[in-house]
Amino acid sequence: MQTNKLKIIPLGGLGEFGMNCLALRWEDDIIVIDAGLMFPETELLGVDIVVPDITYLTENREHVRAIILTHGHEDHIGGLPWILSELKVPVYATEFTLAYVEGKLEEHQLLDETTLIEITPKEKFTLGAFTIEPIRVTHSLVDCVALAIETPVGVIIHTGDFKIDLAPLDDKAFDLHTFAEYGKRGVLALLQDSTNVERSGYTPSERAVIPRLHEIFSQTKKKLFFSCFSSSIYRIRIALELARKHGRKAVVLGRSMMESTEIAQDLGYIEVPPGLVINPGQMRDYPPDELMILISGTQGEPMSALSRAAVDNHKHAHVDAGDTVILSSRIIPGNEKSIFRVIDHLSRREANVIFDDGSHGLIHVSGHGCQEELRLLINLVRPKFFIPIHGDYRNLRRHAQLAMETGAVEHALVIEDGDVLELDQTDARKKDKVTAGRILIDSGSTIDVVEDLVVRDRRILSEDGIVLAILAINKRSAKIEREPEIVMRGFGGADITEEAREVVLKTIDGLSSEQRTDYGMVKEKVRVELKRLIQKTTGRRPMIIPVILEI
Amino acid sequence: MQTNKLKIIPLGGLGEFGMNCLALRWEDDIIVIDAGLMFPETELLGVDIVVPDITYLTENREHVRAIILTHGHEDHIGGLPWILSELKVPVYATEFTLAYVEGKLEEHQLLDETTLIEITPKEKFTLGAFTIEPIRVTHSLVDCVALAIETPVGVIIHTGDFKIDLAPLDDKAFDLHTFAEYGKRGVLALLQDSTNVERSGYTPSERAVIPRLHEIFSQTKKKLFFSCFSSSIYRIRIALELARKHGRKAVVLGRSMMESTEIAQDLGYIEVPPGLVINPGQMRDYPPDELMILISGTQGEPMSALSRAAVDNHKHAHVDAGDTVILSSRIIPGNEKSIFRVIDHLSRREANVIFDDGSHGLIHVSGHGCQEELRLLINLVRPKFFIPIHGDYRNLRRHAQLAMETGAVEHALVIEDGDVLELDQTDARKKDKVTAGRILIDSGSTIDVVEDLVVRDRRILSEDGIVLAILAINKRSAKIEREPEIVMRGFGGADITEEAREVVLKTIDGLSSEQRTDYGMVKEKVRVELKRLIQKTTGRRPMIIPVILEI
Repeated sequence: MQTNKLKIIPLGGLGEFGMNCLALRWEDDIIVIDAGLMFPETELLGVDIVVPDITYLTENREHVRAIILTHGHEDHIGGLPWILSELKVPVYATEFTLAYVEGKLEEHQLLDETTLIEITPKEKFTLGAFTIEPIRVTHSLVDCVALAIETPVGVIIHTGDFKIDLAPLDDKAFDLHTFAEYGKRGVLALLQDSTNVERSGYTPSERAVIPRLHEIFSQTKKKLFFSCFSSSIYRIRIALELARKHGRKAVVLGRSMMESTEIAQDLGYIEVPPGLVINPGQMRDYPPDELMILISGTQGEPMSALSRAAVDNHKHAHVDAGDTVILSSRIIPGNEKSIFRVIDHLSRREANVIFDDGSHGLIHVSGHGCQEELRLLINLVRPKFFIPIHGDYRNLRRHAQLAMETGAVEHALVIEDGDVLELDQTDARKKDKVTAGRILIDSGSTIDVVEDLVVRDRRILSEDGIVLAILAINKRSAKIEREPEIVMRGFGGADITEEAREVVLKTIDGLSSEQRTDYGMVKEKVRVELKRLIQKTTGRRPMIIPVILEI
Repeated sequence: MQTNKLKIIPLGGLGEFGMNCLALRWEDDIIVIDAGLMFPETELLGVDIVVPDITYLTENREHVRAIILTHGHEDHIGGLPWILSELKVPVYATEFTLAYVEGKLEEHQLLDETTLIEITPKEKFTLGAFTIEPIRVTHSLVDCVALAIETPVGVIIHTGDFKIDLAPLDDKAFDLHTFAEYGKRGVLALLQDSTNVERSGYTPSERAVIPRLHEIFSQTKKKLFFSCFSSSIYRIRIALELARKHGRKAVVLGRSMMESTEIAQDLGYIEVPPGLVINPGQMRDYPPDELMILISGTQGEPMSALSRAAVDNHKHAHVDAGDTVILSSRIIPGNEKSIFRVIDHLSRREANVIFDDGSHGLIHVSGHGCQEELRLLINLVRPKFFIPIHGDYRNLRRHAQLAMETGAVEHALVIEDGDVLELDQTDARKKDKVTAGRILIDSGSTIDVVEDLVVRDRRILSEDGIVLAILAINKRSAKIEREPEIVMRGFGGADITEEAREVVLKTIDGLSSEQRTDYGMVKEKVRVELKRLIQKTTGRRPMIIPVILEI
């Protein structure tokens, strides 16, 4: 007898970090959880972002009921514009997450055509065969949920990203009781975040950074620059509160930081007393020891406000001797060179730079639960089947081992993107595979400015061609040594070669000599300007690869 | 009255990590301490290594008396072939360091023409106005020295790289007494390693990894792969001793690991009982639990033995379920993606991979002293002037602060590459600058094979041109989707375009589908094969940039 099975089909985030996306299917009903992006490895030149291949969803488009988002981080929502441009389905998310999504969809001119539906913890909703209850969890971002999904064969719980912050800044507690309740009633499968599975112990509360930050605020005699991820609403809140306590006016610099602060303020996650935040233009009216500058660019992104301030190339932010710069974030692997380059620029200006090097006290905490938290949630939920999500293969494998060691799980299964896991009340097994993989996108965006409004697939390169701009920079004089070489292939760009050369020269001319030795910045600038020229004159969008020769 | 001054002129390693090189000048006598290389940032495509610009030395070639090496790490000796090809001077170093240098010079056909002179701790030698005493220090490598240099204005001490290992494996103690003696008599300037200045406390002894490694050896039921830096002689020694204790035969795989082990054995740093080490071909005669494979590739280098073993592409090393792979080294920032790619490949083969993630117990220790060791040496030496060496600007600045806080130093000075610091008995000040910078070299070498025997300067690119190989790889099928595009510029390569295309296709054909999704490996292979073809047919050595498009 052929009975029906529930299908769990990860499309992204199982086998890599980022671009989280997972489909659940019961007969003709499909729901999708999260729609993230990831940033490309350096080997992939000229690619801005990577999103999951959603062939499986487009091939079954009449069955896809909705996309449900667990929270507003890019690795969970950043792929939405791409997915929605291929697939018109409603999007369900909490209030704060929707505010981020709205901005993103507006940028890509997808807002009007998309149905956005707000969800609330503890309020169930039904999509086809699925009834979903959002459960409040804590994380480095606000308004995050896990999802309990009732299906015909049992309850599936998807944790989203979480840590168990037992003293959250906004008093919105991790809903241990609802998890416990489901655990008591019986859960078929738990899909749990594997990000920090290699770390023992417990992740500290978002609150844990306050004492050391307070100390730094107390000790700083000049301007205080505070940089963190723009989505770190709790961190921004702490920075603003400390500014108020220490008699500093706050200035917000950088587009992402401004947007994020505005949304958080609108939705009541940050309360800003009147007069605390001033405009950048007003900075000159205050002495240095009365200023705190919230600034984006904590990962050393070449075009960010902080990177520009570090080389005296920001209209408002000037770094002087004795200023303090706090990088209240972790150093994402792969970004070390860019970050330390910025730190060196700041150090040369005799600023005091405080970053998360393990020796400065706690100025950053992770948003993901460590081993004890993972074990705790498994013990509460006691699922029959355990499926690790969010991580490289090694993390998933280790998480499966950890789950089995708790004794609270009957069976742990490692699945990867494209695997189809079939479940019923008694059994879970990997069946066929569906198409899954990565789509590379040249979004045309720089860190702070989205210029092109349509995401594109790298596949059309065969039509749009490739441009190589070869620059010979003299390291000593920071001057361009020869005429830049421009190689254009695969599109009729030959007649703009001279113009392209001039654009490149003009771009470099506009950089200070310090900036010219920062190749990341040189490349990004050249790429943006060439892209603009080529698109304007030819309507094409080739891949642009700046090559720097040091002479 | 114009009195003479001693000049300290850093040419590399002050303002960056790597390519350490520093000149001391008194009137017409110049000595050079260390001649290192560094590895390029990813922005510099097609560059293998970076070495210091030695214009200052070549412009004063008749005055350069010698190069003295503190120890055998690449960031201290790797630039020698480049420097010696520009400047014929004798090289002074300890026995072990010289053994490394000999191999390197032989590869570059510079051995016959170079005078190598062995130095020994406590045995002074004179070079022009300088009398130098090597002082034994401990580090992650063996036979390392600091240098005490008597000059007409006072004693200068250069620490080289060091930690203070109070229980060294080879019983060759850090010579605290000689440092103390100099400190008592008076030291004009101390130049001290800044690498770990951001870490508090004390670096553990090389011995400290033994308990955890012992435990891992005890728990492993199948093959045990042990990977570490090939220069980590102590680590290799520990691995071999544990293999012996646990009844495992040792196999050494990877060219650098084999060379290093051989040198260490020849010079008595490793004692290998007869029968312990077997040839790779004999592995099949032993059950898995009687084998320990010392293997190179701890940083995920695409062509290394470990990377190849991880994708079943090594003649001798096969990774099976239940095998253990130990990466006994740190993850060098920038290498995360490559390393985790290898770890994921190994995990898929159900190997147990143990790397330095902070949660596995101590399987690696640093070779550089932390803050307490830095303070201790400053207190012993009590120099008038303190000059931090080896580090980014931020490290140097912090080290200067740390030195001043000890109270044992009169004045700390931060200088950078190209600065000329002039000293006499009472005064030290920065004067003019000399030419300094980085020279980018395409050595033609892959990880394990040095193919071209002459180092080259990127400057000649204008003569040798550039080659772009554009590959479209289908991520799903791992197949090449289109004919590769070959763009050749700046040399008459047009008539070999077709041949180049075929070489690229053939190279990709020779890779497994797993390897083809490892873009680092694909690029390296394509680069090596194209280089070979172009050099053979045209005698030119253009910069080769493989570009991968994922489809």
